[in-house]
Amino acid sequence: MALIIQKYGGTSVANAERVKEVAKRVVKYKKAGHDVIVVVSAPAGRTDELIKRAYELSDSPNKREFDMLLTSGEQISIASLAIAVADIGEKAVSLNAFQVNFKTTSVHTKAKIIDIDTQIIQEKLDEGNVVVFAGFQGITENNEITTLGRGGSDTTAVALGAALNADEVEIYTDVDGVYTADPRIVKNARKLKTISYQEMLELAASGAKVLHPRSVEIAAKYGIKIHLRSSFDDSTGTIVQREEGFDEIGNQNIDTKGEAMEKVKIAGITSSKNEGKITLFGVPDKPGIAAKVFSRLAKEKINTDIILQSSSRNKELNNISFTVKSDDLKEAVAISEQIKEKIGAEGVSFEEKIAKVSVVGIGLKSHYETTSEIFDILAENNINIDMISCSEINVSCIIHEKYIDKAVTALHKRFIEIDD
Amino acid sequence: MALIIQKYGGTSVANAERVKEVAKRVVKYKKAGHDVIVVVSAPAGRTDELIKRAYELSDSPNKREFDMLLTSGEQISIASLAIAVADIGEKAVSLNAFQVNFKTTSVHTKAKIIDIDTQIIQEKLDEGNVVVFAGFQGITENNEITTLGRGGSDTTAVALGAALNADEVEIYTDVDGVYTADPRIVKNARKLKTISYQEMLELAASGAKVLHPRSVEIAAKYGIKIHLRSSFDDSTGTIVQREEGFDEIGNQNIDTKGEAMEKVKIAGITSSKNEGKITLFGVPDKPGIAAKVFSRLAKEKINTDIILQSSSRNKELNNISFTVKSDDLKEAVAISEQIKEKIGAEGVSFEEKIAKVSVVGIGLKSHYETTSEIFDILAENNINIDMISCSEINVSCIIHEKYIDKAVTALHKRFIEIDD
Repeated sequence: MALIIQKYGGTSVANAERVKEVAKRVVKYKKAGHDVIVVVSAPAGRTDELIKRAYELSDSPNKREFDMLLTSGEQISIASLAIAVADIGEKAVSLNAFQVNFKTTSVHTKAKIIDIDTQIIQEKLDEGNVVVFAGFQGITENNEITTLGRGGSDTTAVALGAALNADEVEIYTDVDGVYTADPRIVKNARKLKTISYQEMLELAASGAKVLHPRSVEIAAKYGIKIHLRSSFDDSTGTIVQREEGFDEIGNQNIDTKGEAMEKVKIAGITSSKNEGKITLFGVPDKPGIAAKVFSRLAKEKINTDIILQSSSRNKELNNISFTVKSDDLKEAVAISEQIKEKIGAEGVSFEEKIAKVSVVGIGLKSHYETTSEIFDILAENNINIDMISCSEINVSCIIHEKYIDKAVTALHKRFIEIDD
Repeated sequence: MALIIQKYGGTSVANAERVKEVAKRVVKYKKAGHDVIVVVSAPAGRTDELIKRAYELSDSPNKREFDMLLTSGEQISIASLAIAVADIGEKAVSLNAFQVNFKTTSVHTKAKIIDIDTQIIQEKLDEGNVVVFAGFQGITENNEITTLGRGGSDTTAVALGAALNADEVEIYTDVDGVYTADPRIVKNARKLKTISYQEMLELAASGAKVLHPRSVEIAAKYGIKIHLRSSFDDSTGTIVQREEGFDEIGNQNIDTKGEAMEKVKIAGITSSKNEGKITLFGVPDKPGIAAKVFSRLAKEKINTDIILQSSSRNKELNNISFTVKSDDLKEAVAISEQIKEKIGAEGVSFEEKIAKVSVVGIGLKSHYETTSEIFDILAENNINIDMISCSEINVSCIIHEKYIDKAVTALHKRFIEIDD
């Protein structure tokens, strides 16, 4: 008998018919003798409707109330699924964040998980219930309701898995696994059987939308296996797990280093639109300036992705560029204007129609020839590279949005399909 | 500076535009220097949609989950209103039942209020907030979410008023006051300036839908004034309060008895469709049988309205008839079948298309001639009376549904318009 956590997204619980399908699948596992916890998101489209409602009421909706509004969505799903499971004969109980003390920080709309009181959940499981839990939400120490930010339901599911030492966390979604590229862009994209936490992290951070990075980080930290699979059929998906020969944060074990040095193993090519670029230009070249800029952005909870500092014509001045998500662009530009005043920079500019293409693979950083090949391929396709970022297993390039499909297709052909 | 509780129903918060209108009205009171608590219902139609969703998932949805599902509706409204109030410059905070320990019994879908922890609310008010509170819901001692049954938001508002000793509870609705009859049925219906708790109770129990009886009972118990008024304009509505010359449960003070005996003061004529009648026939004429029947129904939380016991042809057998709300009819019939077996009755029958017409007025009971006039008027209009019930200030008749408008119009003409 195992403890299985299942997570279903909005499409899977979009209406009564779909909820009943999920209920059947859940009950199948229960009847097979397992303890089952199901984490569900709001019905498809509901969260966006509620966000729209908030912005009809205010240009700048109060964040605490924003969280109160959005969490009504998950409550619909957990109650619906519990009703459906009970209707086909298994005991089920739905639970909100406050009912299990799912403690988070107080940062509304982007709260981080602190702790989970597993006692109530364990009691309900011991009583023979299927437990249906609301994803995406938490409760602060002052009884305030929070939301975890995008991808929050994946995060909830894996966090529960970690807290309860689950045997497996199954994330059900509308694709049947992790692919070497977005199959809608690249016809020849392939499904991966397994993938390491590190590679999944890079793919997700670089644009792959199937699994949220936060959930992968928690899974990596606690060694929880994530099985990403389709909610439409019974196909096996992709298992995200510890890579053989690597420790939990992705460092190569010395023994296998020799083997890894022979070949770069490219996991996939990802892309991400909805990016924005901001440049602070004419920044005085003094120690501590960059720290001022990015600590201020971090304080406002703006996530910066790629950062680049370059000298301008005047050697005493620099340009600092960084990318953010489109959702954060407006706020980031406003903050940058304030930073400009504070540090005495000459100006702030921004670009909206940019995108990021990334090549992800173990050992990429140490293979200069592979990295330069990436640049060659983009150049051959007349794609201008605006910014570059390299990490241990990832090379990302900022390009114009209109070239993104072309870039992904070309890189996939060279690095994945080349074995064919 | 006063403490005002305002309650707005679903129509008043149906969409963003309406919510903004409510916000303006709320802020007007706040700027005038009052402490304001606003109780809101789910957006119009939302509760019915959620009920529909529950019955798509199950013929007999689990009641605990039903409450979890429905309370998502009020959460949308409280957050929306708080966002709107904050947007026009006043501090606002929305609160759920669990956040203020709004304690109820554990009877899901029909929970009764036990206690309210006013400390949190008072703190938020003292911090200068408009408090926006979710109507219709409660929390049990085991942290389970409950709903209070129909009219629950009125009940929440008045209960808060009682717990916090509010100066006034304003119930905003889509009519501008309490009328002597439903203005949609009787063209000449008049708006009442004031009405006693007792009369309001009788009108509400007899079919007037503007204010739920439970809320009036609480108001009567604690002496809270209810101002029932329109959410569409600034008109003064009807104040529900203690009647002069009467104590809090509606007993006449002896001093004014002489005066009251001169005239019957008819407050209004009400009607109620959506009733069902059940008859247990051939019930053995033994002591304790009626007690068995009605204690069993009460145990299943079925509210019975009018009860009638009559002898059948066989003097050793009786027929027991009673009316229930249509919503409860199916369950009540099923229970009656079980009771029939248990007490050895001959059979159970039921009727669906019945309605109740009531004449409400102080002193009605002691005026036999008025009561018989009621019967005469119905007879003149060829309306058959199936069951009769009389109380201190109310005469109710069960008739066929198709005659209801005719009955109300005729009675209103005789008892209200006769002064013209």
